[in-house]
Amino acid sequence: MPFPNLLLEVGSHELEAAETLIAIARFMIIFVAARFLAELLVRVQLPTILGELVAGVIIGASGLHLVLSPEVQSNLNNGLINLISDLTSVPPPEVSHLYVDSFTNLQSWATLGLYALLFLTGLESDLEQLIAVGSQAFSVAVVGVVLPFVGGTLGLMAFFHVGTIPAIFAGAAMTATSIGITAKVFGELNFLKTREGQTVIGAAVLDDILGIVILAVVVALSAGGSLEVFPIIRLLVAAAIFVGVSLFLSKTGAPIFDWVIDRLKAPGDVVVMAFIVMGGCCFAATAMGLEAALGAFAGGLILSTSKYIHRLQEAVEPIVALFATIFFVLIGTAMDLSVLNPFNPGNREGLIMAAFLVVVAIVGKVATGWCYLSKEKTNRLVVGLGMMPRGEVGLIFLGLGSSSGVLSPPLEAAILLMVIGTTFLAPILLRLALTDQDVLPAEGAT
Amino acid sequence: MPFPNLLLEVGSHELEAAETLIAIARFMIIFVAARFLAELLVRVQLPTILGELVAGVIIGASGLHLVLSPEVQSNLNNGLINLISDLTSVPPPEVSHLYVDSFTNLQSWATLGLYALLFLTGLESDLEQLIAVGSQAFSVAVVGVVLPFVGGTLGLMAFFHVGTIPAIFAGAAMTATSIGITAKVFGELNFLKTREGQTVIGAAVLDDILGIVILAVVVALSAGGSLEVFPIIRLLVAAAIFVGVSLFLSKTGAPIFDWVIDRLKAPGDVVVMAFIVMGGCCFAATAMGLEAALGAFAGGLILSTSKYIHRLQEAVEPIVALFATIFFVLIGTAMDLSVLNPFNPGNREGLIMAAFLVVVAIVGKVATGWCYLSKEKTNRLVVGLGMMPRGEVGLIFLGLGSSSGVLSPPLEAAILLMVIGTTFLAPILLRLALTDQDVLPAEGAT
Repeated sequence: MPFPNLLLEVGSHELEAAETLIAIARFMIIFVAARFLAELLVRVQLPTILGELVAGVIIGASGLHLVLSPEVQSNLNNGLINLISDLTSVPPPEVSHLYVDSFTNLQSWATLGLYALLFLTGLESDLEQLIAVGSQAFSVAVVGVVLPFVGGTLGLMAFFHVGTIPAIFAGAAMTATSIGITAKVFGELNFLKTREGQTVIGAAVLDDILGIVILAVVVALSAGGSLEVFPIIRLLVAAAIFVGVSLFLSKTGAPIFDWVIDRLKAPGDVVVMAFIVMGGCCFAATAMGLEAALGAFAGGLILSTSKYIHRLQEAVEPIVALFATIFFVLIGTAMDLSVLNPFNPGNREGLIMAAFLVVVAIVGKVATGWCYLSKEKTNRLVVGLGMMPRGEVGLIFLGLGSSSGVLSPPLEAAILLMVIGTTFLAPILLRLALTDQDVLPAEGAT
Repeated sequence: MPFPNLLLEVGSHELEAAETLIAIARFMIIFVAARFLAELLVRVQLPTILGELVAGVIIGASGLHLVLSPEVQSNLNNGLINLISDLTSVPPPEVSHLYVDSFTNLQSWATLGLYALLFLTGLESDLEQLIAVGSQAFSVAVVGVVLPFVGGTLGLMAFFHVGTIPAIFAGAAMTATSIGITAKVFGELNFLKTREGQTVIGAAVLDDILGIVILAVVVALSAGGSLEVFPIIRLLVAAAIFVGVSLFLSKTGAPIFDWVIDRLKAPGDVVVMAFIVMGGCCFAATAMGLEAALGAFAGGLILSTSKYIHRLQEAVEPIVALFATIFFVLIGTAMDLSVLNPFNPGNREGLIMAAFLVVVAIVGKVATGWCYLSKEKTNRLVVGLGMMPRGEVGLIFLGLGSSSGVLSPPLEAAILLMVIGTTFLAPILLRLALTDQDVLPAEGAT
């Protein structure tokens, strides 16, 4: 209770009502805005995640100031504060204080959404298929991680004099391909079941694993603030052990999970046990000095061979639909897009930096098409373009970097533009690059 | 940040890791304990909600001190604090501070669980069936609300010198029958589809509506701290308007909802729109000075005739399984059962009060069987016993009363015993009271 003198003047019932109204209002503003823009983007065949970001930008610090985290030094929307003040007879300054004090609850929901999303991503990873397209996917994945990471990090340091830690952070944000967006576009274009399609998905899964490992290392490093060799090696070893144990458990852990579920009789067994497994993996990752997000992904990977996979997905999907939406919208709300205004001469360098990141992000992934080891005739451009959209994992980097204060506002905005640009361009360029020869015949009404 | 001097000594990465570990540890302790006890109780054919309560008592203030809200003036479990301190090198006193500071996040999840549970209860209310058994169910419901409310409130004031507001609170906590528990026991005993069975369920739904309206009024009154005539009338009118509008919208609102869902294309449409409706109803209820819980129930009632009812239930159930569990476990953690120790002479009055509440709660509901207006031969004892288990709504009263500080520890423990006692005894007594004549023939393997 940080403002005891103010609080004493107002009844506790009024304060509680104001706090409830603030929480519900924020929740509803986020969902109405996200839904509206997601529906708009679906109709022009663009990924809904872009809609959630744009919704955040509109209601956040660069827009209507309705949803603002306390870290953003900006004024709340007066209309919202006055409405709640009028409804509860709590004075506006105290409504603002309640808003700031309770924001951590919303952030804890967003964090839960992030973990649930990564858990679901792990759950939907098909390790068998990954091994089948193994070596071909591996070369595509590694090149698609190394090129943007090295190009982005060194380029930012050499041309824009960005510090080492933020440059590594930005480079790392460019590594991971979005499985969801690529799979969806390929599916719509009847390209998913082709050999190239399967390879790209396999490479995207590998990318995700590499990207989340890099995330775990980079976030830990950036928190330390310095680049020493020993912590890097320690974290890389911890990450390798963690991924190794997870892959081992994905063979042995799921049968144990199934055995336990078979014996449970109280309702809610699948979802509760899934969250216990996810919580355990998050705890282990955090205790080893890695990001809890890596644990959530590993938890999903471990259960991906469970016989209850469909019930797991059904149970986790509504939780992702609600809480991951809050995560992506909150990223949008924190963005300061005024640094991208081209009419302000001071913004030139930031804009050039954004353009540089977009180009490196595109070139670094499109080049992977020519690293695809295959003797058969292959549309290499399609493979490269398929690896292009960054989506979720890039945004997770942005969200964590933004909240840890490592990134400058121009660099934050440049990373956001890189994620939006690649995710936005990939479906359009893929439609242009795919010829009828590439795709499988349409399956008709079946 | 209430302890700036302490915080500066520890790196922010360590603090963040400690906060994450605390959140995950609390989450897992709650779920492992709740699951373990729910599984135990299911095997002896008792409701799982009792297991969640007992789990809370075991891990909370009366047990291991692992999950403790800041309101409970008690010491945290040293083992847990030291474990997290060892894993993150954050000193134990700061781990305790982080634990206290972040508890509000857990409470916000519990509140969401409560709303989701009441939303689901509203969703599963069958208004058509309620109207069919209408007048018979109505007399059972009203008597079952009035008898325990008047008997409990006046008895506590006359025999135990309890203040008016806490006495009304305790009386109100005795009003609502648990639909879930009764429906489950009747189903297991092949009694659900009989005329008496349907009447009891109808009366339980009416009870719920009456109970939640009483809750909305009583919580608002108790916050004011005094009993004046005008606020009571204002709240009753507001509640009547709110319920009236909700019943009207349950005819017209669901088709509009269906029309909107038919036109949505982005994923997660049903669950997100359901939570937007629920949020809107909670906002309206709070803005009218009523409890948000009434709004959540009304939101479910409005959508109970939607053609997407099955997808709605499927989407809300995992959220209830996770977050309502936290709500019920947290109620158990806050209970101080030492006031019930019979070897302490100072506890005598509290124990006698608990016994009194259990007797009034049983007699007040069993008597309703003889208010059942029917010319046919009826097992009136079964109707009365069917109305007996209190379950969720009684606990919601207890949770809200406990957090608002209205109830004394002995009265809190007495209400908890009343809820546990009625919920525990109802299935056992029902099995004894039901004869083969009462039940429908078993349906065999179909």
